[in-house]
Amino acid sequence: MITSRDNETVKLAVKLMTSAKDRKKNRCFAAEGVRLCRDAAESGAKIKQFLYTAAAAEKYRKDFEKLISVSVSSAELSGGIFDRISDTSTPQGFLCIISMDEEKDRFDVVKGRKYAALENVQDPSNMGTILRTAEAFGADGVLLSSGCCDVYSPKVVRGSMGAVFRLPVMTVSDFSDAIGKYTDSGINTYASTPREAVGIEDVSFADGGIMLIGNEGNGLDEETISRCSQRVMIRMKGRAESLNASAAAAVLLYEMMK
Amino acid sequence: MITSRDNETVKLAVKLMTSAKDRKKNRCFAAEGVRLCRDAAESGAKIKQFLYTAAAAEKYRKDFEKLISVSVSSAELSGGIFDRISDTSTPQGFLCIISMDEEKDRFDVVKGRKYAALENVQDPSNMGTILRTAEAFGADGVLLSSGCCDVYSPKVVRGSMGAVFRLPVMTVSDFSDAIGKYTDSGINTYASTPREAVGIEDVSFADGGIMLIGNEGNGLDEETISRCSQRVMIRMKGRAESLNASAAAAVLLYEMMK
Repeated sequence: MITSRDNETVKLAVKLMTSAKDRKKNRCFAAEGVRLCRDAAESGAKIKQFLYTAAAAEKYRKDFEKLISVSVSSAELSGGIFDRISDTSTPQGFLCIISMDEEKDRFDVVKGRKYAALENVQDPSNMGTILRTAEAFGADGVLLSSGCCDVYSPKVVRGSMGAVFRLPVMTVSDFSDAIGKYTDSGINTYASTPREAVGIEDVSFADGGIMLIGNEGNGLDEETISRCSQRVMIRMKGRAESLNASAAAAVLLYEMMK
Repeated sequence: MITSRDNETVKLAVKLMTSAKDRKKNRCFAAEGVRLCRDAAESGAKIKQFLYTAAAAEKYRKDFEKLISVSVSSAELSGGIFDRISDTSTPQGFLCIISMDEEKDRFDVVKGRKYAALENVQDPSNMGTILRTAEAFGADGVLLSSGCCDVYSPKVVRGSMGAVFRLPVMTVSDFSDAIGKYTDSGINTYASTPREAVGIEDVSFADGGIMLIGNEGNGLDEETISRCSQRVMIRMKGRAESLNASAAAAVLLYEMMK
């Protein structure tokens, strides 16, 4: 049983819970909690290491056995050490260190399929909710601009309800340029923006395409909007200036995928 | 200038920021930040007291003058005292103590109009987002079960983007019974539930009604569902068990109000 905070596994886990840079460097991330760890196992995520407390192993026996069997390695931690790693107030005692799935996350955008693309979405709760929504509506993949928050932060992983284990998510450098190239190759690219746009209910999505969703405060960059094939909007009645980014994404992706 | 934490106004503000019980007892709540305070003034909210720091008064001169003119009273606080009241890490130095608008929040549910009703929605972020969404799509009012989180908590007020200043929001005791009575009186009541339900895109909302949205983890109570006139659902494709409550609410209210 690991009881020291100086243990290398503990130090790695703390880094993965707190630093996007360390996640990138190690090409792995952490998923904490019974539900998420079970979900990782069921989704076939590559679990490098499964960390648990004795109390949790006892309490969640069935999940514990499954996780032990699918993980490359595992280690028991003392409750005190587990609490140091956890970012929740009442840790359940399960944490998986998961390898990023580069195969899943490297994909070609194909004509006829449906994708979401997020530009500079910075709030982890919004990001998590949007990934969860994209999966629920059957998106084939999600493109992210490099200005988005880290998709492997604990908040995003939790908010996505495990969608990050399954949904192809690719970060794209030179975002507006990449979108422009998709447009030029005949893929529909829909810029969600309230100005000079067509109501989303009047758009046919039969040919698929990419639905672009912008930053919480500023929306999509003008440059990006100009490279899209169509501007679309959600018609509103009330006084609220606009919908919350994740609420807007839900409506846009629902209309696109229904 | 108020510099003491023992000042009665400071003590009241702290209570309003932290305690639903004290908000209820005093029939008022707090709105913090330049944008929200401006919004309160523009929405005609009854501002009992406007609290500010000298730095904020200087920095946001125009908003400061407007707020001074529409508030019943006002007081300057030292930066240190303001920080004690604030629940943000970088306080902007504006806070309004606002009287609950009982007139706005006491309304009759009218046939032909459109309402949302939330049963035991407990996460303040979800609640705030749903209120913002309801206003954006032009809901005539929102009904809350008594098991919902407090609609006047700072997180809800902020997340609603000021919708709480304008949108009629009424808490209903004996929620399922109240819904049953609306159903009996010929008002359409739509229970969102994934079981034995009609796809939301196949429902006509021409006659208005009430869209019911349930608790984040458990959905609507069976008793409540049984008292509704129709069960509706959002069709999904992917593996995510369900949408986040606020994403589901966005799609349901969009379809109902479009």
